[in-house]
Amino acid sequence: MAKRLGAQTVALTKAVSVAAGAAVVGSKEGEGPLRERFDEVGSDAYFGQKTWEKAESVMLKHCFELLCKKSQTAPAQLDYLLAGDLQSQCTGSAFAARESAVPFLGLYGACSTMGEAMTLGALLIDGGAAQRVCAMTSSHFCAAEREFRLPLEYGGQRTPSAQWTATAAGAVLLQSGDCGVRITHVTTGRITDGGITDAANMGAAMAPAALSTLKAHFADTGRAPGDYDAIITGDLGHFGHGLLEELMRREGYSFPNVFTDCGMLLYDAQRQDVHAGGSGCGCSAAVFAGHILKCLREGMWRRVLFAPTGALMSVVTSQQGESIPGICHALAIEAEGAA
Amino acid sequence: MAKRLGAQTVALTKAVSVAAGAAVVGSKEGEGPLRERFDEVGSDAYFGQKTWEKAESVMLKHCFELLCKKSQTAPAQLDYLLAGDLQSQCTGSAFAARESAVPFLGLYGACSTMGEAMTLGALLIDGGAAQRVCAMTSSHFCAAEREFRLPLEYGGQRTPSAQWTATAAGAVLLQSGDCGVRITHVTTGRITDGGITDAANMGAAMAPAALSTLKAHFADTGRAPGDYDAIITGDLGHFGHGLLEELMRREGYSFPNVFTDCGMLLYDAQRQDVHAGGSGCGCSAAVFAGHILKCLREGMWRRVLFAPTGALMSVVTSQQGESIPGICHALAIEAEGAA
Repeated sequence: MAKRLGAQTVALTKAVSVAAGAAVVGSKEGEGPLRERFDEVGSDAYFGQKTWEKAESVMLKHCFELLCKKSQTAPAQLDYLLAGDLQSQCTGSAFAARESAVPFLGLYGACSTMGEAMTLGALLIDGGAAQRVCAMTSSHFCAAEREFRLPLEYGGQRTPSAQWTATAAGAVLLQSGDCGVRITHVTTGRITDGGITDAANMGAAMAPAALSTLKAHFADTGRAPGDYDAIITGDLGHFGHGLLEELMRREGYSFPNVFTDCGMLLYDAQRQDVHAGGSGCGCSAAVFAGHILKCLREGMWRRVLFAPTGALMSVVTSQQGESIPGICHALAIEAEGAA
Repeated sequence: MAKRLGAQTVALTKAVSVAAGAAVVGSKEGEGPLRERFDEVGSDAYFGQKTWEKAESVMLKHCFELLCKKSQTAPAQLDYLLAGDLQSQCTGSAFAARESAVPFLGLYGACSTMGEAMTLGALLIDGGAAQRVCAMTSSHFCAAEREFRLPLEYGGQRTPSAQWTATAAGAVLLQSGDCGVRITHVTTGRITDGGITDAANMGAAMAPAALSTLKAHFADTGRAPGDYDAIITGDLGHFGHGLLEELMRREGYSFPNVFTDCGMLLYDAQRQDVHAGGSGCGCSAAVFAGHILKCLREGMWRRVLFAPTGALMSVVTSQQGESIPGICHALAIEAEGAA
C-alpha cells in the first residue's frame, strides 16, 4: 500500500522494478553522443512509411515489440499499456498500440509523458492493480514541426532558444518484484505557468515547472540534491537548464554537477546544429530507456531522480495569445544496493 | 489491495466512492431531456470568452470549482486531478486546471476520457496513493467542429450518422470510504479497429470497442447484462447503439432494455436536430455527473455499468486514409444496499 509523503509525493511500499527498456531513434539521434546506447537507429525519417506521422507510429510499435522481445514478455502478459505522444489526439501512440490487444490508457503530458506513464504504471503495480505494465512514448521531428510550428518545406529560421524535437521512441517494462532497478518515489507535478509566450523558448516555459516539482520532491522526502548521483530533467535543453540553475540558487538550493538534462545529453548541440538541445516526448523516453537505465544497471549511478518536463500548449492556444503552462513529474529510481 | 479478475478487470477491495458530481452544459444541452439534472446551463457558446477553445476551458474550470463548492472540498485537499479533452494537446483541460495547484495527470481517451479518468482515480485510491481525486473532462461543439471537421462558418451538411459534440463539462469527486455510491469494478479497454473510415460515423467505429469491453467485463466478473439496472455506453448514439445491439446478439448475449447510451440520453434527437445523438468527452461526463449519479442516489438504479467509448482518430490520420480505432472503459458502480 503506497504511502503519501507531503502534498505531491508517494513512497512505493512494494518493489516496483524497471525490468527492461528499449529505445529506437532516428538517424540524427543516432549520430549523437548516446548512439551506442540505443537498440536501433533508423536510416531515415520515414521508417518505411509514406508519412511522418505513420513513421512515428511504426517506430514506437517497433520499440514496443523490441521491449517484449528483450524482456521475453508476451503482450498478453502485460496488464496495461500507458502511452502518449505529441500528435493531435495522441494518434502516434494509439496507432502504435492498435494491434497490441493490451488494455490501453492514453496519456497526454507533452514532453513529460514518460514521467507520467512511469508514475501511473508504478502506482498501479504498487496498488496491486497490475503485475506488469509497459510505459512508452515517442516523438518525431518532422511530425512535430508540422504540428507545432511550420511545415519543414517552409525552411524557416530557428532562434537560438529553439529546441530540436527528437525522432525517438522509448519503452520500459515495469514489473512487480525486485529486478535490480527500482522506482522508490514518485512526485507528481502541478501545472506551473511563468507567463512565457514564446513557443520557441520552451525551456524557459518548463523551467518553473521543474523547479516546482523538484522543490516538492525535496520537501516531501527530506532529501537534498546531493542525495542523488544524477538529477536528470526531461528536456529543458541548455537554455532552460541554465534558467533552472538560476531559479534553484535563488531559492537557496545548491546546484551540484549531478544536475543534467535529457535534452542536453541526446545531441552534441554545437556539432549537430540543434540550438538549445533536444525536446519531444521521445527525448526523455529514449534517453531513459537507452542510457539512464543502463547507467543504473552498470553501477555508474546508484540513485537518480528522473524528472521529465512538458509544455502544455498547442498552436491554437499560442495563436490566441495564451502563455505556456509547464509540468514536470519526478521519479526516484535506485539500483540494487543503493544506500 | 486491488484484485485482478481475468485479463481486463480489477475488483476494488477498498471502498471507493463517487462522493460528488458537477455538470455544466451549453444552451442546446440545457434544452434537452436532462435539463433539470445539470448544475448550470450556459446562455450561449462563449461562456464570457472570445474564442470557443477558451470557452471550453472556462466552462470546465467553472465545473471544477462547482464540484469543490458542492462537496466542501478545497483543491488543496485533492491528491490528483485527472483530466483530458478533445482539443489538440488537450489544452481544454490543461488550461482549466492551470491555476488549481492540484497534482495533474493529463489523459487522452477521446470520448472515453471520463471512463479512463474515473478508472485511474479509483485505482489510485484503492492502491493507497490517494484519498481524494477529481476526474473531469469536457467538450465544446464549436471547438470540436473546427478541430475535427469544418469551421462552422462553412455551413456544411451533416450526414444522418453524424453525432453532435456536446458543449458540456462533467467532474466527479472520488473519495476513499463509503459515501453511498461506490465503484466496485473497472474494466479497461483494448483498442479495437473495425475498419470504419467515415469520420461522420463514429458510432460504428466505436461499437466494436464497446462490444469488446462489455464482453470482457461479463467474462471477467461472471456477470450478465441482467445483473445491471442500467448499462450506459458513452456516446455511441442511435446508430452505434443499434449496431452494438446487433453485434451483441450475434455473440449470443441478450440485449435487454437496461442498455442505453449517454449520446441518446442527452438530446431529443428528433426535436433538437442532432442526427444520431450526442458525442464528445463532455457528453458522458455531464450525463454521469448530472444524471446517472443522481439516479443511483435517488434509488432509481442500484447497480449500473458505465462504459464511455472513444474514437482515437485525428484529422491527420483520416486524411492519410487510416481507419478509426475505438476504445471503451467500463466501471461497475453501485448504490448503497445493492444486492
